[in-house]
Amino acid sequence: MDKPDKNYDAVQPIRDDLMSGAAELGLRAITIFQSVLSAPESDSPAKLKESLTKTSAALIEAQPAMAPIFHLCNTVLLASSKASSLDEIRQECHKALDSFEKTLCDSAAAIADEVFDLIPPGELIFAYSFSSTVVSALLNARAKGRYFRVACTEARPSMEGRKLASRLASGGIEVIHTFDNAMGLILPNCSAAFMGCDCIGSPGVVNKVGSWVLAVACRELGIPLYALSGTEKIVNDDRLFEFEKHERPAEEVWDFTTKGIRVLNHQFDLVPFNLLSGLVTEQGILKEPDIEKYISKLEVHESLKLQPATF
Amino acid sequence: MDKPDKNYDAVQPIRDDLMSGAAELGLRAITIFQSVLSAPESDSPAKLKESLTKTSAALIEAQPAMAPIFHLCNTVLLASSKASSLDEIRQECHKALDSFEKTLCDSAAAIADEVFDLIPPGELIFAYSFSSTVVSALLNARAKGRYFRVACTEARPSMEGRKLASRLASGGIEVIHTFDNAMGLILPNCSAAFMGCDCIGSPGVVNKVGSWVLAVACRELGIPLYALSGTEKIVNDDRLFEFEKHERPAEEVWDFTTKGIRVLNHQFDLVPFNLLSGLVTEQGILKEPDIEKYISKLEVHESLKLQPATF
Repeated sequence: MDKPDKNYDAVQPIRDDLMSGAAELGLRAITIFQSVLSAPESDSPAKLKESLTKTSAALIEAQPAMAPIFHLCNTVLLASSKASSLDEIRQECHKALDSFEKTLCDSAAAIADEVFDLIPPGELIFAYSFSSTVVSALLNARAKGRYFRVACTEARPSMEGRKLASRLASGGIEVIHTFDNAMGLILPNCSAAFMGCDCIGSPGVVNKVGSWVLAVACRELGIPLYALSGTEKIVNDDRLFEFEKHERPAEEVWDFTTKGIRVLNHQFDLVPFNLLSGLVTEQGILKEPDIEKYISKLEVHESLKLQPATF
Repeated sequence: MDKPDKNYDAVQPIRDDLMSGAAELGLRAITIFQSVLSAPESDSPAKLKESLTKTSAALIEAQPAMAPIFHLCNTVLLASSKASSLDEIRQECHKALDSFEKTLCDSAAAIADEVFDLIPPGELIFAYSFSSTVVSALLNARAKGRYFRVACTEARPSMEGRKLASRLASGGIEVIHTFDNAMGLILPNCSAAFMGCDCIGSPGVVNKVGSWVLAVACRELGIPLYALSGTEKIVNDDRLFEFEKHERPAEEVWDFTTKGIRVLNHQFDLVPFNLLSGLVTEQGILKEPDIEKYISKLEVHESLKLQPATF
């Protein structure tokens, strides 16, 4: 196999990052584009555009379920395609990166304000996996004087639930932590549940695996479950199912192999809208029928369009 | 604190055994009683009876959710209470131990025969946690020429699902293994699900934590879920809820403590009968109304009766 080129090397930390939420990964990807834009070897418009296209492909391949990465790449490529000179490409792309970063931060702030009213005072609430949007919403509510405790679970195999627990605890929120299969013991004591998400399409939201079983358990117990996400995570349905390709090494689950045992390590599952009480976005709480109009407005750069499967 | 006496030391391996199913632990407890019965220091009927009573209390305290241990102790104490001389006590107790061991083995064999018809040929089935009854039923079906594959998950935190996977694989059954929160990804491909259980009462069956969420997921997907267990696991309702006292050390879940994070490590949950397709016993497939008549026939030794809570 060929040695991966420099862009691929730069993408490796994003590929290995199983602990960050989608919005956080979007922010990390911005810094990769910033260094691509200033790389001295991209000394012609064609070379720079090629480099941006390759970086986009590598980033999306590294984290196919993370919609902010896809949209960031799409935004950069659409910006570059409208520019001709080297300076113009750099200028347009930097503008696109800044604007994308602002969107991510503004969305998180707007969502945090909406979540305040969804947290019942004095109660225990549940939060799943790690999402920077969920963390900022809960810390914002706590800072504004709402008292509540949070129950969370590990989110095997990468245990990003522990990161959630630590962030909330260091922000002064009391946390009860257990393992994922013990969800059924702690949920009956919870009044509401919150999760982030990585990707949204018309069939539902894609998030860390375990979200589906959480959603089914919440419905069984009559606990409202909210997914928190900026609308920048909405994608076309074909893109939504890209997450299914994302199989991680079996050794992350069980570093022991026996003949006859196949170990699966898939990171994401899909929660259909009928299992969610609402999708809390910077545009308010959206329901299933609202998603379609966002999808219809999406403009996708030619190099990022998925080829239909041929039979 | 006083140094634990010899009986308590002998019980420690049972307390530390998080990998064995209830029937298996029952067999292990038989060997503890065998050594208590032959201990030279029990040189009077009173001393031997006291020693049997203390051993019973220690065994039940070590594994409060495991009905076969309770019933074994109860059987031994009832046998000893009918005997007067040292020889007579030993003889009656050995008879009780032999008969209990035979019951456990006969139950497992009868259940295995019934399970054969519940395994759809050529399909993928799901099995949860570790249960010697489930393992023997699946290996028996395979040995009789039924072909099927088994999906299973880890059963955090003690990972006895890995023991299940290894036992099945070494018996020639192809296994697909993943982590507990990924249940929702593998279950839609399964045609039936099986679990063991530790304890049965009129509200439902107690088993390794995660069984409840499995049951809710199975109902959501229309997958029949069977609990496999001998009727020797049926207990009174007060005894059933003893499992709730069984909290294990937090360090088994997360060996890191931060101010503000409380780590819970409960091992069992309860699956109500309405979430089960059936309880497969050596007496056939039982439903909720059948349990009551077994409970009404239970005779409990005076020293094992639970005191009602006082307020």
